[in-house]
Amino acid sequence: MRASQIFIPTLKETPAEAELVSHQLLLRGGFIRRLASGLYTWMPLGLRVLRRIERVVREEMDRSGAQEVLMPVVQPAELWQESGRWEKYGPELLRLKDRHQRDFCLGPTHEEVITDLARREIHSYRQLPVNFYQIQTKFRDEIRPRFGLMRGREFIMKDAYSFHMDHASLEITYQSMYDAYQRTFTRLGLDFRAVEADNGAIGGKRSHEFHVLADSGEDAIVSCSHCDYAANMEKASSPAPAAEQEALLEAAQVATPGIRSVNGQAKHLGIATSKIVKTVLVLAEDKPYLLLLRGDDSLNLIKAAHALQVDELRMATPEEAEAATGAPVGFIGPKNLPESLPVLADLRVLGLCNFSSGANMADLHWINLNWERDLPRPDAADLREVTAGDACPHCQQGILGIRRGIEVGHVFQLGQTYSEKMGLSVLDESGRDALVTMGCYGIGVSRVAAAAVEQHFDDRGIIWPAALTPFDVGIVAIHARKSPEVAAAAQALHDRLEKAGYSVLLDDRDERPGVQFATMDLIGLPHRVVVSDKVLAQNVWEYRARRATENTLLSETELMAQLAAGLSGAADQEQQKHQEQAHG
Amino acid sequence: MRASQIFIPTLKETPAEAELVSHQLLLRGGFIRRLASGLYTWMPLGLRVLRRIERVVREEMDRSGAQEVLMPVVQPAELWQESGRWEKYGPELLRLKDRHQRDFCLGPTHEEVITDLARREIHSYRQLPVNFYQIQTKFRDEIRPRFGLMRGREFIMKDAYSFHMDHASLEITYQSMYDAYQRTFTRLGLDFRAVEADNGAIGGKRSHEFHVLADSGEDAIVSCSHCDYAANMEKASSPAPAAEQEALLEAAQVATPGIRSVNGQAKHLGIATSKIVKTVLVLAEDKPYLLLLRGDDSLNLIKAAHALQVDELRMATPEEAEAATGAPVGFIGPKNLPESLPVLADLRVLGLCNFSSGANMADLHWINLNWERDLPRPDAADLREVTAGDACPHCQQGILGIRRGIEVGHVFQLGQTYSEKMGLSVLDESGRDALVTMGCYGIGVSRVAAAAVEQHFDDRGIIWPAALTPFDVGIVAIHARKSPEVAAAAQALHDRLEKAGYSVLLDDRDERPGVQFATMDLIGLPHRVVVSDKVLAQNVWEYRARRATENTLLSETELMAQLAAGLSGAADQEQQKHQEQAHG
Repeated sequence: MRASQIFIPTLKETPAEAELVSHQLLLRGGFIRRLASGLYTWMPLGLRVLRRIERVVREEMDRSGAQEVLMPVVQPAELWQESGRWEKYGPELLRLKDRHQRDFCLGPTHEEVITDLARREIHSYRQLPVNFYQIQTKFRDEIRPRFGLMRGREFIMKDAYSFHMDHASLEITYQSMYDAYQRTFTRLGLDFRAVEADNGAIGGKRSHEFHVLADSGEDAIVSCSHCDYAANMEKASSPAPAAEQEALLEAAQVATPGIRSVNGQAKHLGIATSKIVKTVLVLAEDKPYLLLLRGDDSLNLIKAAHALQVDELRMATPEEAEAATGAPVGFIGPKNLPESLPVLADLRVLGLCNFSSGANMADLHWINLNWERDLPRPDAADLREVTAGDACPHCQQGILGIRRGIEVGHVFQLGQTYSEKMGLSVLDESGRDALVTMGCYGIGVSRVAAAAVEQHFDDRGIIWPAALTPFDVGIVAIHARKSPEVAAAAQALHDRLEKAGYSVLLDDRDERPGVQFATMDLIGLPHRVVVSDKVLAQNVWEYRARRATENTLLSETELMAQLAAGLSGAADQEQQKHQEQAHG
Repeated sequence: MRASQIFIPTLKETPAEAELVSHQLLLRGGFIRRLASGLYTWMPLGLRVLRRIERVVREEMDRSGAQEVLMPVVQPAELWQESGRWEKYGPELLRLKDRHQRDFCLGPTHEEVITDLARREIHSYRQLPVNFYQIQTKFRDEIRPRFGLMRGREFIMKDAYSFHMDHASLEITYQSMYDAYQRTFTRLGLDFRAVEADNGAIGGKRSHEFHVLADSGEDAIVSCSHCDYAANMEKASSPAPAAEQEALLEAAQVATPGIRSVNGQAKHLGIATSKIVKTVLVLAEDKPYLLLLRGDDSLNLIKAAHALQVDELRMATPEEAEAATGAPVGFIGPKNLPESLPVLADLRVLGLCNFSSGANMADLHWINLNWERDLPRPDAADLREVTAGDACPHCQQGILGIRRGIEVGHVFQLGQTYSEKMGLSVLDESGRDALVTMGCYGIGVSRVAAAAVEQHFDDRGIIWPAALTPFDVGIVAIHARKSPEVAAAAQALHDRLEKAGYSVLLDDRDERPGVQFATMDLIGLPHRVVVSDKVLAQNVWEYRARRATENTLLSETELMAQLAAGLSGAADQEQQKHQEQAHG
């Protein structure tokens, strides 16, 4: 295709609204344009990238045996009321009324619709297992849409839903989806990690997130230096150290005038922060809970919510904390609390000896407290965030590191949550009704485009992985309007390359070479070939890979070999890099 | 693909909710399922048909030089307020508010969004002409969604929008789109007609609708028996007969007690209905207009609205008619009306001599009225609906016929309506601001699937045109569970056919042959091959085309030849049939 035939509105300046590199470069390269907050138009170049992603996703889903369908964007409220999510989902669910004042929503996800379809169409164990997927526009009314495609309101998802007679069948499909995702993101040339994730309140046993590794990622992901353990922050754990073995000292109250912080307390008392039990008051639907953590640990609220089996937790205000404990903030402690206040400790807290804590009176702390001798041993769970350097929970040899990731995929065992709520059962082999077990599997198709850019760019622009590039090869015809020879040779090379199966963008614009090179670098095609009077005179092509800094003069045979190697090799290189990082 | 690997929920009974054949058969064949009123899920088989339609549409759009983009479904109200359509569009525009109480709508069409994009990105004549298209989910909140895909609320459109410096440039792209549509619908194997349509109040000069011919079509389309003139009812016209040349008789009032109808009047007065001028009172935004038509003609309200240059007309109630004319309904006539009441006559009314009409008094009519002698000659326009047998307005040799059509495409010259309202101008060659001229071009992609079925079915099911079929070939393996030879031979044939480039559905289900045949007929694959112990013993395949009534025993070489001829020939046959009908 000639550049004069495709609308590529590049920008010289970085748009002020764009913080992330991917947002900046996708706007500057003319891939997307903003219509309104969180709403983007895919321009011709961007849509070519999107279609390439969709194609790889579709091929791998088909290969896994999943069946493609297409469900409506607009969904009736009744189904969401059945599942209980009409109330629960919050303002991200965009609700609307049709002309007859009936309630609908724009689908952010399709569990309800597919479960409704399944209960109408699937009646026998003989129809199971089955796995349906779709690639579709979805809507989530983000409170602050930002980062371009990364967190838009309207976006494109691949979502799949599988149905099974039992958990063993779900496990097989779950693994097959996990494998399909591994193949998909590998083919897309992304450096990614699959990490264990928490299933949350919804039930089901297993869940994995797929993250593209990038410094700009919104999520922290945890991985082991030695084995292949990887998890997100809500799921990651590290074994608690062995219980301390110390001679028990005498408990005492110590004046700590105005000293409310852990660090202040450690300094004032001359002890390590790890010897301090700090308290955090949280509320679930206005019911207070007191959480205990080691002074050097941080609370993970989601872990706490799961441990307490509530949907959502929030931190108490100082007033709420004082009302629940009767003690001033900064001096709250586990000894002598109102009996009605439930207490949950992090596992590490249980191993402490001779620890310090607030005395539930102003300007007073305990030192040398010990469980059972001075106060009852509380219930405990994993409440803390792991930190870099923690021991790995799997191999006990490696240590945990923390990196940033962009979530682009999620595989999730739903179990029987929706089947129960919406009455999806089938006849089993013995003719009895059996609840169906479900899994769901998502890929953020439009987000993949942004994530790929976050991982593949330099100061000149995007560097597309071979699988995602809008065109395989860019040809720059230098002063083609003045040189008919250049114009003809460039067009002929374009035609031969397209015939050989490459998609080619021929820059035939009436621009200075510097502008042409800058455009090619900005839009990030993997291969650039320059056609000028000079190279024609030498009977060669001037070639440069997007990542290279020097030109190479190649015969056409050499050029063809270079392209073939570059394109087929791209995925392998990415794959290799990924594996190095996974073990590095 | 094996039938056991694809979910095809066929139904034996015709669902009660489905009136149209296409709706019935697409439900029965397991192509679609209803989620809610006007909302359908595309099942695996249906989606394969949809994708084939999309592919042909996309190829022909690309070939025409149009550039594919993808705009958001959710559109900000501000743009619709600028164009004036936020108020005008009526309740079919589904309006909604986001979490910040800002107004949005679900896009039924994208003129506003693309015009906004163009005014941000297009600044110079050098960027024009350009034509953008998308294939996208749209929403129209129909008051009574029905007929399945034919008139759903959520549907898939291909919509294109072109931008030009002047009308001459628009004409070139308009013709190129017209040609692309001809190629598209021909390739899809549809018997269709392009008909002239009216541009309505929106301006612009030309417009054509593309209709699939089917008895169930909602629209009447008019075509000439001799030339290629074809138009929809709003646009179709027929030349008025020459003015009557009669000796003028004396006008007189005649008692017509209780005779309000045209037919009653004709009988009572002993004259032809064509000699009666009937009156129709209409209102536009509560302003009354009196329309005059010959007693044997019918009013077309849309023609009248255009002639009066108003957006919308409605028929007056009897009370409104009496209030506007001061005369009782049934006796209203053009002579002696209030001067403030505007009168518009159909062109045919002007040619009448000695005509009869109401006398604006109860139980009284005039006879032998003549223009100018008895009452002033009114303004006139084409207000009547053409009828079968009318003279052709183009060739003056043929007569008009009326058939039913399903509108599947529309090409439309928008002119400068949106450019003016939304301020889309560019610098012309002399550096002056110039308003941009636009065209728009739609194809009802999902509706094409239904229209194709309306045109291609029999009492056993669908008969897909080759371009639309979900699978090219169906293989029926008879008693495959009992005969390993049949199972193996069917699978091997399946594999060879797929390798030869055909998509194949292999029915390997454990069903009786009758059930297998009925399914194949219902889902409408063009070619069926039966594999049984009997045919294996003869070393042949049992072949039947979907339209045929007898089996043929073929060697594999003959089978391959048959398939090649059938598939490549299908489009040509349809094309030929189309041309025959176009001239028949």
